[in-house]
Amino acid sequence: MRNVTQDNLTDTFLGYFGDDTNPRLREIMESLARHLHDFARETKLTHAEWNQGLDILREAGRITTPQRDEFVLLSDVLGLSSLVDMINSSEAGTNSSVLGPFHISNAPAFPMGTDLRGDYEGELILVQGKVCDTDGNPIGGATLDIWQTAPNGLYSSQDPEQDEYSFHALFTTEANGLYRFTTVRPVSYTVPTDGPVGKLLNATGRHPWRPSHLHYIVKAEGFQPLVTEVFPDDDPYLDQDTVFGVRDDLVMTYKPQKAADFPSEGLALSGKVDADFSRVDFDIILSSEK
Amino acid sequence: MRNVTQDNLTDTFLGYFGDDTNPRLREIMESLARHLHDFARETKLTHAEWNQGLDILREAGRITTPQRDEFVLLSDVLGLSSLVDMINSSEAGTNSSVLGPFHISNAPAFPMGTDLRGDYEGELILVQGKVCDTDGNPIGGATLDIWQTAPNGLYSSQDPEQDEYSFHALFTTEANGLYRFTTVRPVSYTVPTDGPVGKLLNATGRHPWRPSHLHYIVKAEGFQPLVTEVFPDDDPYLDQDTVFGVRDDLVMTYKPQKAADFPSEGLALSGKVDADFSRVDFDIILSSEK
Repeated sequence: MRNVTQDNLTDTFLGYFGDDTNPRLREIMESLARHLHDFARETKLTHAEWNQGLDILREAGRITTPQRDEFVLLSDVLGLSSLVDMINSSEAGTNSSVLGPFHISNAPAFPMGTDLRGDYEGELILVQGKVCDTDGNPIGGATLDIWQTAPNGLYSSQDPEQDEYSFHALFTTEANGLYRFTTVRPVSYTVPTDGPVGKLLNATGRHPWRPSHLHYIVKAEGFQPLVTEVFPDDDPYLDQDTVFGVRDDLVMTYKPQKAADFPSEGLALSGKVDADFSRVDFDIILSSEK
Repeated sequence: MRNVTQDNLTDTFLGYFGDDTNPRLREIMESLARHLHDFARETKLTHAEWNQGLDILREAGRITTPQRDEFVLLSDVLGLSSLVDMINSSEAGTNSSVLGPFHISNAPAFPMGTDLRGDYEGELILVQGKVCDTDGNPIGGATLDIWQTAPNGLYSSQDPEQDEYSFHALFTTEANGLYRFTTVRPVSYTVPTDGPVGKLLNATGRHPWRPSHLHYIVKAEGFQPLVTEVFPDDDPYLDQDTVFGVRDDLVMTYKPQKAADFPSEGLALSGKVDADFSRVDFDIILSSEK
């Protein structure tokens, strides 16, 4: 197209594709271009605003490392990450929620009933439930990859005081599908605010807080992997998670329990608990592979 | 919103804005979020595709320097840069076109009629025209900031063989609004293809070529600044400029001239030209300040 105009630009862009372009790539790029162009036309974007937008990306590029991904964070606070989770979440099983940047690939495997709290201060919680299929049948051999913050709000990779695998653990279910472990109650925390995403949150009057949560990745042969989180129902940020991760079926009551009610067997701390604790019951439903 | 879903995510996002958010920022972020979310919903974007998109941004971040801005290039090949130019271009004056990354702020000022070709091989062109307002009145005191590639397709900042200001020049019009200079015919060239944008072009079957052009920034007191380009009408990439910069009123015929027809005065090369050359007539219309 020799005379590119506001009206024919999108079609001109689409006309540039090679005939043997992968159809899915073409579909994605076509939708991306239509929305990007409509965005600029609708807002009558100025050069200064265009450059401010690019500044966010340039700054994100400067601050991003393998340990700190500002582009993922940008996607998170814009709701894109959660939307992709929801689009790809099975309708039948437990809802998925954001993976976040703090997962570690080689978490140590522990026997069921292990205690993750160790010497850390904070409210003891007993977390338990069943992994089952959409018909309610228990799934044995399912792995639960669990991680969370320490009581200071930091994940081990953020905190030189913690061991590398502190509050990271891998469990495998027996044939009954049950899982249980003890840990410390995780806390609410803020996403990193020292980069361009922090500036954007600030400029739009948004706080950087996430409600406290336990992360889960649950996998079992023949089922779709599930990446999810569990939230306590009394967290002050539950209705305004800055990364949009909360779903109804992921909100659990942390039920207060007397010390005397701690199970007398089946847990590493059985017989050793002399303070009140909370119990979190979270059952997990996996969908069959497509 | 506690139960964020695909359907309420965009409204949840909009509900997070602080009451005192700058209205224009809110307008831009609202449009951006609506289009970003619609894009993901329409394409049913998978996690792998989302991550491939982020990879483009991460790679762009790694390759971007003050001298090489891959984010601008991405905006260019997606048509966004040209669209912003068109949105902000005056309807009455000469069309604007992309600034590109090779402008230098402090180009040397030259008297009208200067020759920029120097010792370079390549076809001599005489470029001339009038700067006027939308009623056709000449504008004196207008500055023309001109830059272009050398015959090897490189701008001075890309080419260690060239002087820093090679093929960069600043001219100021007299009261008659006329300008003229000689130079070498610029050549078609490719945008950089060694980064993620090059990969994207390749994956979508697009070439990386731009038609040859002369860059202009024209400024005058009381008028809107004009950033534009002039293209020869016989360039093979005129109908498929990879950054969408071509407009009808920026395409000029390079008119072949006999050596004997070279003006006998008013140009640094007057009386010194013994080979045929081409003449490019390009008049510039500036719009009054808004």
